[in-house]
Amino acid sequence: METIIKINCIDEKGLIHKITGILYSRSLNVTQTSEFVDETANRFFMRVSFTGDTELSILGKELVNVLPAHAEVEIIKPGKKKVLILVTREHHCLGDLIIKSVYHDLPFDICGVIGNHETLKPPCDKFDIPFHFEPSTELTRLEHEAKLNGIISSYQPDLLVLAKYMQILTPEFTTFYKGRIINIHHSFLPAFIGANPYRQAFERGVKIIGATAHFVTDDLDEGPIICQEVISVNHSHSVKEMSRAGKEVEKAVLARALKLVLEDRVFIYQNKTILFD
Amino acid sequence: METIIKINCIDEKGLIHKITGILYSRSLNVTQTSEFVDETANRFFMRVSFTGDTELSILGKELVNVLPAHAEVEIIKPGKKKVLILVTREHHCLGDLIIKSVYHDLPFDICGVIGNHETLKPPCDKFDIPFHFEPSTELTRLEHEAKLNGIISSYQPDLLVLAKYMQILTPEFTTFYKGRIINIHHSFLPAFIGANPYRQAFERGVKIIGATAHFVTDDLDEGPIICQEVISVNHSHSVKEMSRAGKEVEKAVLARALKLVLEDRVFIYQNKTILFD
Amino acid sequence: METIIKINCIDEKGLIHKITGILYSRSLNVTQTSEFVDETANRFFMRVSFTGDTELSILGKELVNVLPAHAEVEIIKPGKKKVLILVTREHHCLGDLIIKSVYHDLPFDICGVIGNHETLKPPCDKFDIPFHFEPSTELTRLEHEAKLNGIISSYQPDLLVLAKYMQILTPEFTTFYKGRIINIHHSFLPAFIGANPYRQAFERGVKIIGATAHFVTDDLDEGPIICQEVISVNHSHSVKEMSRAGKEVEKAVLARALKLVLEDRVFIYQNKTILFD
Amino acid sequence: METIIKINCIDEKGLIHKITGILYSRSLNVTQTSEFVDETANRFFMRVSFTGDTELSILGKELVNVLPAHAEVEIIKPGKKKVLILVTREHHCLGDLIIKSVYHDLPFDICGVIGNHETLKPPCDKFDIPFHFEPSTELTRLEHEAKLNGIISSYQPDLLVLAKYMQILTPEFTTFYKGRIINIHHSFLPAFIGANPYRQAFERGVKIIGATAHFVTDDLDEGPIICQEVISVNHSHSVKEMSRAGKEVEKAVLARALKLVLEDRVFIYQNKTILFD
Repeated sequence: METIIKINCIDEKGLIHKITGILYSRSLNVTQTSEFVDETANRFFMRVSFTGDTELSILGKELVNVLPAHAEVEIIKPGKKKVLILVTREHHCLGDLIIKSVYHDLPFDICGVIGNHETLKPPCDKFDIPFHFEPSTELTRLEHEAKLNGIISSYQPDLLVLAKYMQILTPEFTTFYKGRIINIHHSFLPAFIGANPYRQAFERGVKIIGATAHFVTDDLDEGPIICQEVISVNHSHSVKEMSRAGKEVEKAVLARALKLVLEDRVFIYQNKTILFD
Repeated sequence: METIIKINCIDEKGLIHKITGILYSRSLNVTQTSEFVDETANRFFMRVSFTGDTELSILGKELVNVLPAHAEVEIIKPGKKKVLILVTREHHCLGDLIIKSVYHDLPFDICGVIGNHETLKPPCDKFDIPFHFEPSTELTRLEHEAKLNGIISSYQPDLLVLAKYMQILTPEFTTFYKGRIINIHHSFLPAFIGANPYRQAFERGVKIIGATAHFVTDDLDEGPIICQEVISVNHSHSVKEMSRAGKEVEKAVLARALKLVLEDRVFIYQNKTILFD
Repeated sequence: METIIKINCIDEKGLIHKITGILYSRSLNVTQTSEFVDETANRFFMRVSFTGDTELSILGKELVNVLPAHAEVEIIKPGKKKVLILVTREHHCLGDLIIKSVYHDLPFDICGVIGNHETLKPPCDKFDIPFHFEPSTELTRLEHEAKLNGIISSYQPDLLVLAKYMQILTPEFTTFYKGRIINIHHSFLPAFIGANPYRQAFERGVKIIGATAHFVTDDLDEGPIICQEVISVNHSHSVKEMSRAGKEVEKAVLARALKLVLEDRVFIYQNKTILFD
Repeated sequence: METIIKINCIDEKGLIHKITGILYSRSLNVTQTSEFVDETANRFFMRVSFTGDTELSILGKELVNVLPAHAEVEIIKPGKKKVLILVTREHHCLGDLIIKSVYHDLPFDICGVIGNHETLKPPCDKFDIPFHFEPSTELTRLEHEAKLNGIISSYQPDLLVLAKYMQILTPEFTTFYKGRIINIHHSFLPAFIGANPYRQAFERGVKIIGATAHFVTDDLDEGPIICQEVISVNHSHSVKEMSRAGKEVEKAVLARALKLVLEDRVFIYQNKTILFD
C-alpha cells in the first residue's frame, strides 16, 4: 500500500526538484507524482504516492524545510477512511455506498449513519451499520446539530457524507467540519440552486439534467465542486421521471467524488478543487 | 422526398385514428408518425411524414375538420429552407454552417450573412454568400434593427440563425420573428446566463461546461431550448481554454438543433420544445 | 396503471388507423403510442399504452382481425414482473438489483437467485431472497442446466437476468428461454468478444471502454443488443482499474436495459431490438 | 511561447529530481510538468514545458547525461507545425481542418492537400491551399506512393493527416513515416475493423457508434489509438443516417487528436499512446 503526500504552497522555482530530492535521498519508491500550478493564484499543488518505509514525521519536517513559508503538507498513511453518512429518506445513494463499503469497492468503512427520518434504518440494520435516528423537528438547528455533533465526535470520522440529507446546516457546523463534508446536489450546479431542482428543470424545459458532488461550506450549494455528471432528458420526461433518472446520476457522481477524496486526490483551494485523477 | 404534417391541438380521444384515417383514405404512403401528449397541458402534438401526390390545401382542410377548435396544422412541402445568419466576430459556427451548406450536409441554403463587424466577410466571399456589414455602433437598437429588417425582408428567409451574434435584440424584433430565430448560447442554460459564461464557469470551478441552442424570445437567454451538450473540464483549464473547448460544443449543438428545425421535427409550446428525432 | 399492447407484423397501409380505431371504439384512454416501420424488412412495430377497463381477450381478437396474417400481438396487464437472477461471484450488478427491487425502483420482484458459487448468498439472505447454490463443477453443461431448469420452473419467472454469470449456456437452454434472458457483457460489443475484455482493452490501448446489455441467443455475445454505455479511460488505467470503472457502467447499463424490458418497451426482431423509450 | 521537452526512457529512481535539477540550475521557468511510469514496462515518460532562453543543444546533452542509456529526449521549439493532408472524396474532416488552420484554432499550417480524387480541390483553391491530384487508379501502390513521396518531400511536413483517405498504404510507406501519420477511422476500434463500418454497425444493431483517431502502422486499423469518441444511435437510424451522425464524431475526434499531437502531448510506446492532456 502507498503513502500519500499532499503539498499546497506558494509557487516558486525548483519546488519539484527539492521535493523529489528528499524522497530520492530516502530511497523511497515513488509510484506516482502529479503537480499543478495555478498561475493566476501563484499556487503550487503536488501529490506524491510512494512505497517504502520511512519515518513520516521526519519526512514531513524535511519537506517543510525546503518549501516556502506557510506551505500545507499532509502525509497520509495507507488505510481505509472512516465515513459517517447523513441521510433523510432517499435510499439510492446510501444503498450504493453500503454495497461499496461491504464489498470493499472503495477504501472506506461506514462507521455509522444518522437519519433525520427513520426510513433508512432497515438497510443499515441488515448490514450491521449503526443507525442513529435524530429527528430535526421540534428542535432548533443548533439543538439538532448539537445532537449530531455528539454522535460524530463519538465516531471521529475522517469524512461526513450527506447522501441526500435534506437539512440545511448552520455555518457553525459547516465551518467546524470544513473540507470534510461532501454533499450530493441533485442538479448540475450552478443551475437550479435550491429546492426542487427537477421541477425547475422540467419547467425550464432543459434537455440535460445532472448532479454535482461538492464540499459543503456555509454558502448553500456554493461549495467547491468535486464532480459533475449529466444525462439527457426530453419533452416526454415528467418531473418524476427526471427525478428517477437523476437519482442514477446522483449516486454515480457521489461515488466517483468519494473515491477521489478517499484516495487523497482532491485539493481544495479557495472555492475550487484540484483533482489529480 | 417527403411532405411533413405538424399538428398541435387540444388533446381528445381518437385524434390519431381520425388523422391517419384521412391519410389512409387518400392512399398516401405514411413513412413516419410521431405523437406526444402533454398531459399536464392536455395538448396533442403529431408529426407525420408521407410520400405521394395529393392536393395539400384540401388535405389541410380535411384535417382541420376532424380536429378540435384552434388546432394548428402545418403542411410543409419537401425542399431546402432559406436561412439568414447573423454574426459578430467569431468564426467557428459560421465556418461549420458554410461547409454544411455548400456540401448539402443539411437541407438549407444560406441566403445571406449579416455581420455587425466586418471580420467574417472573407469566408462568405470565398463561397459567394452575400455578406452585409451593418455596424450597430452609433445607432439605437431600433435604428440598427430597421436596417436588419430591410435586409431580412429582401431575402424572405425561413429562419434566422444567430451564430454568435453578440447583440441584444429588442422585443419588437424577437416578437416579429417569433419561432423563427435560433440562437447558440455559450453555456449550459440556465447556468451562467448573461455575459462571459466561460469566465463565470471558471470562477465557479465547474467540472462540466456546455452550450445551448434555443429559440429567441423577448426574454434574454430564456427562450425554448432545442438542444444542449456538455464537455468535461478541470482545474487546469483557463478561461481561454474553456472557451476554446466550448466553441467545439457550440458549433456541434447549433448544427444539431438546426438539423432538427430544418427537418420540421421541433414543436414550440409555451416555453418548451417537443422534439421528434 | 396502464395496460400495454405490443404489435409486430408485416407493414401495410392503414395499420395505425385500424389499430387506433379499435381502441377508440372501446373508449379506452390511450396514454402513449409509438410506432416504427423497418422499411428494409417491411415490418411494422407498435406499442400502445392505455388505461380503462376492457375485455382483453376480445380486444386481442379484434386487433388480430384487422392486422395482416401472422401478426404478433401481446397484451400485457399492469403489474410487476418476476425475475430470476443468475450470478457467479461479482456482486456489483446483483447488489444494485437487490436495492432496486427492495425499494421498487423498477417494476420487478426478484423471485430467486441462482449462483454457481456460494459467494453471493449473504446479501440475498439479508433481504430474504432465496439463493440456490448450484455448482457447475463436476457436471456436464446439460446436467447443470437440468438443475437450473428445475429451479426456474419452480418459480416460473418472466425473465432471467445473467448478472455476471460466468458460464456458457447451451443452445438448448438459450433456445428454450428465447427472448427472456438478458445478459450484461463487460465490453462494448462487438469489441472484445470473449474472455477477459478488460485485459484485451488494456492491451489494445483503447481510450473508451463500455458494457453491453443484450438478449442471449445460442450465438455467444451475438444476441440482440438492448443498451450500451461507455466511459473514458487512459494510459494510466491498469486492467484492474479498467475493470473497476467498467463495473459501474455494467451495473448502470444492465439496470437501464432491465427497465426498458420490464416496461415492455423492447421488441426483438431478427437480431436487433427496437426500443420505444 | 513555450518550449517542450519530451523524455521517454527506462524507469529508475530519482529521474524527476535529476531532470528538474537541470532545469532549475538553468533558471528556466517551468510552466507544466507531467510524468507517467508504465510499471509493467518499467518505462518513464515525462513532458515539461518551460519559458526562458537557454541553449537547447546543451540542455539536451545535460539531460541525456543524467538519464539511463537509450533515453529518447526531444526538445521542441515553440511554433506551428506543418501538416500535409491526404483525402479522397469526403469533405467533413478537411473542411473543419481548413477552417481551423485559417483561423489559427490549432497551431498548424496546412502546407498542402493530396487527393486521389479531384473532388476536394475547390475548398483548397478558395483558401489558397495547394491541392495535388494524384489518382491511384492504373498505378501499383508503390508507384502511387512514389508520387506521394515526391510531393511530401517537397513540403517536408511535420505530420501527415489521413482525413478520410480511402487507400491502404504499404508497410514501406507507413514505416518510413512512422509516428507521423494520423488516421481517422470511422468506427470505435477495435469494433468494425475494415470496410463499411457503418453498415457493419447497422447490421449488428449496436446502440452506440464512434470514431477513432490513431497513428498509422503497417498493421491496418491496429496502430496506437490517440482519441475515441462515440454517439448514441437507435433502431431508426439507417446506414446513411449512422454515417451522417458518425461524420460529426469523426471530425471532432480527429481535431482533438491533432490538437494533442500538435501540442506535443502524445507519446507512442509500443502499440499504445500516453497522453498528457
